[in-house]
Amino acid sequence: MLDGRVPDTNSDYITTKLSSLGLEVGLRVVVGDDQDKVRDTITWVMEASDMVIVTGGLGPTDDDITREAVADALDSRLERNEDLERLIEALFEKMGREMAPSNLKQADLVAGAIPLTARLGTAPGQWIERDDKYLVLMPGVPREMKNMMSADVLPRLDERLQEKNRKSSVSLHIAAKPESEIGELVHAELANMQDINVSYRARPGQIEVRLSSWNAQQLSGAAAIVRESLAEWLVAEGDATLEGNLGRELRSRGLSLAVAESCTGGMVGERITRVPGSSDYFNGGIIAYTYRAKQDLLGVSNDLLKEKGAVNEEVAMAMAQGVKERLNAGIGIAITGVAGPGSGGEKEPVGTIAFGIATREGMSSWKYRLPGDREMVREAASTVALALTYFYLRGGAK
Amino acid sequence: MLDGRVPDTNSDYITTKLSSLGLEVGLRVVVGDDQDKVRDTITWVMEASDMVIVTGGLGPTDDDITREAVADALDSRLERNEDLERLIEALFEKMGREMAPSNLKQADLVAGAIPLTARLGTAPGQWIERDDKYLVLMPGVPREMKNMMSADVLPRLDERLQEKNRKSSVSLHIAAKPESEIGELVHAELANMQDINVSYRARPGQIEVRLSSWNAQQLSGAAAIVRESLAEWLVAEGDATLEGNLGRELRSRGLSLAVAESCTGGMVGERITRVPGSSDYFNGGIIAYTYRAKQDLLGVSNDLLKEKGAVNEEVAMAMAQGVKERLNAGIGIAITGVAGPGSGGEKEPVGTIAFGIATREGMSSWKYRLPGDREMVREAASTVALALTYFYLRGGAK
Repeated sequence: MLDGRVPDTNSDYITTKLSSLGLEVGLRVVVGDDQDKVRDTITWVMEASDMVIVTGGLGPTDDDITREAVADALDSRLERNEDLERLIEALFEKMGREMAPSNLKQADLVAGAIPLTARLGTAPGQWIERDDKYLVLMPGVPREMKNMMSADVLPRLDERLQEKNRKSSVSLHIAAKPESEIGELVHAELANMQDINVSYRARPGQIEVRLSSWNAQQLSGAAAIVRESLAEWLVAEGDATLEGNLGRELRSRGLSLAVAESCTGGMVGERITRVPGSSDYFNGGIIAYTYRAKQDLLGVSNDLLKEKGAVNEEVAMAMAQGVKERLNAGIGIAITGVAGPGSGGEKEPVGTIAFGIATREGMSSWKYRLPGDREMVREAASTVALALTYFYLRGGAK
Repeated sequence: MLDGRVPDTNSDYITTKLSSLGLEVGLRVVVGDDQDKVRDTITWVMEASDMVIVTGGLGPTDDDITREAVADALDSRLERNEDLERLIEALFEKMGREMAPSNLKQADLVAGAIPLTARLGTAPGQWIERDDKYLVLMPGVPREMKNMMSADVLPRLDERLQEKNRKSSVSLHIAAKPESEIGELVHAELANMQDINVSYRARPGQIEVRLSSWNAQQLSGAAAIVRESLAEWLVAEGDATLEGNLGRELRSRGLSLAVAESCTGGMVGERITRVPGSSDYFNGGIIAYTYRAKQDLLGVSNDLLKEKGAVNEEVAMAMAQGVKERLNAGIGIAITGVAGPGSGGEKEPVGTIAFGIATREGMSSWKYRLPGDREMVREAASTVALALTYFYLRGGAK
């Protein structure tokens, strides 16, 4: 992780889970497998915090030094736990693998620690309480850590937490509307609200508005106001996703979907099919990257393309109609635009994207100018396409 | 970042860049916008390190407290820099925006600091040297930070670095071969090499083998050996990508490509079109998520699908042939498999993926069993598809 090539996903996961209990993280540290450095780091962060969670370094090899470093930092010592010893031996027997003696290192607990039994790996965690502070050790392998976090750590924490220490939050995902306009809207709506903290997390084409407060009642009032004022562009709330909500909407109406993509190159199809079970409502799509593919595979007229170019609402509607017919779908959607860096000979500036929807009731189209570089434009375009489809269905389209 | 929803991409970027100069990062810390906490953190990490890079908190608002915290930690003070004042005023004038007086805070330098002039934003950075240690302040906005890192920080560092402090590294990207086999191979090849550090970074379907050493000559020997033993599965080296190398291979042969995707839902097309200029060789594709789409749009025979199911090498070749013809491409490639979580009625177990390639010279096919959950299987399948195509072309196919 310290060479920058492996993202620190454990910290992100743990922080998100703690925040779901209303706990705020004040400090995150990544340190290498050096026993003295780890000891100094733990000493320092224990001083600055009420609770410290350490992941990694609990395995059987020489560079697994977390147990020793923690015992050192707490001026304590390690004790071999016999139950854990037997558990580790049994695990190896079950896997039919011979156990190197070094594996029994994993049965060493900091004096007074409660063992957290790993369900997936061999490295047990440890729950340590000192002077009203908590120190929790978990394995570094993300799957094992997540399992232990849910099964052992969160329930224990939840038990020990006082109501006054909890901060509540509400997350609203808004799409296809510029970030600055959303900020102004929210700011105006919440002008008189104290004790409500607002933060934004923008991704291309999409923004998460997060309200948080120590006052749960005030938060719920504020959330209702913001939810109403942004209702038109609301695509998901909390852990839900635009892709999942669109799928639910299609499934509940018994509608099938097909996509025609140009500049997004398959990204819309890829996002729709992230959702398990999407084959219930997704028929497939056509990636028409060239003029010729738009004509041959989607039936867009040569004259129209010659006259208007590919970045055009009429072209987008013809593509949507074409893909709907060819894939026997209830709805066809289409994206065609210039993602850059060059304009590819189109008249429209980079970032201009046309969207089309075709249903048995007729066709609609939109044109957006999306900011950023090639990757941002492509991601924003695919988000806007999914959002427009979702809004269209939610508006009562059949 | 401390709520876990914004990944700490700045740290990853900075660490990667430092490692390109042969510098190792020993500690990474994320701390909130609290002046005392930031001061304590800086004091602590300065003790433990030869160089500290701080990003964020250099803006004009009240919660931008990095300058004050650093001055405090160094027992120093802030001095207003007149050149910077004028620069900031000029910037606002150029943007036609009125400047709030608080913006001039950004002209405050820690005594003795060299200002690093931001080219993209208004927040200048600072380069501070104390007792043979370096402390560098940069803005937190990734675009501004990256710009300053390349233009100001890396050249300065490069100048000050002694040869003996540099660690060299070589990165080989290997695809379509199981991680464990690669590990064994590399281990065997390098058994007699000392002073060579090997690390692996696995992504679904792909693994990066990184060799590093303080001994540049030994590293180059080791790299040559590993490169040769893994040549068959080598898809890229260093900063190059599989997608980019595949594109170069297609372009140099004047070949065009079309893709037929089932379980990957568009991911292969999306990855090919990440590369700017991919329209030179990518015609498009067909996402055939249903049996019917495979028949109607790709001409796969109903009998074949009924007899063999969709996860089958013959079906994959028929899809590749179909998409090649329909998109008038030189090469057609196809992916069909079960990504899970359910088997979708197919006979093959989850993770089984068939790949097909069709060229004017004939057809080839492969079958893989890929591990992991739905997202991992899809990503691995798209990587394997791109890698097999790249290997096929590199092998001399026309």
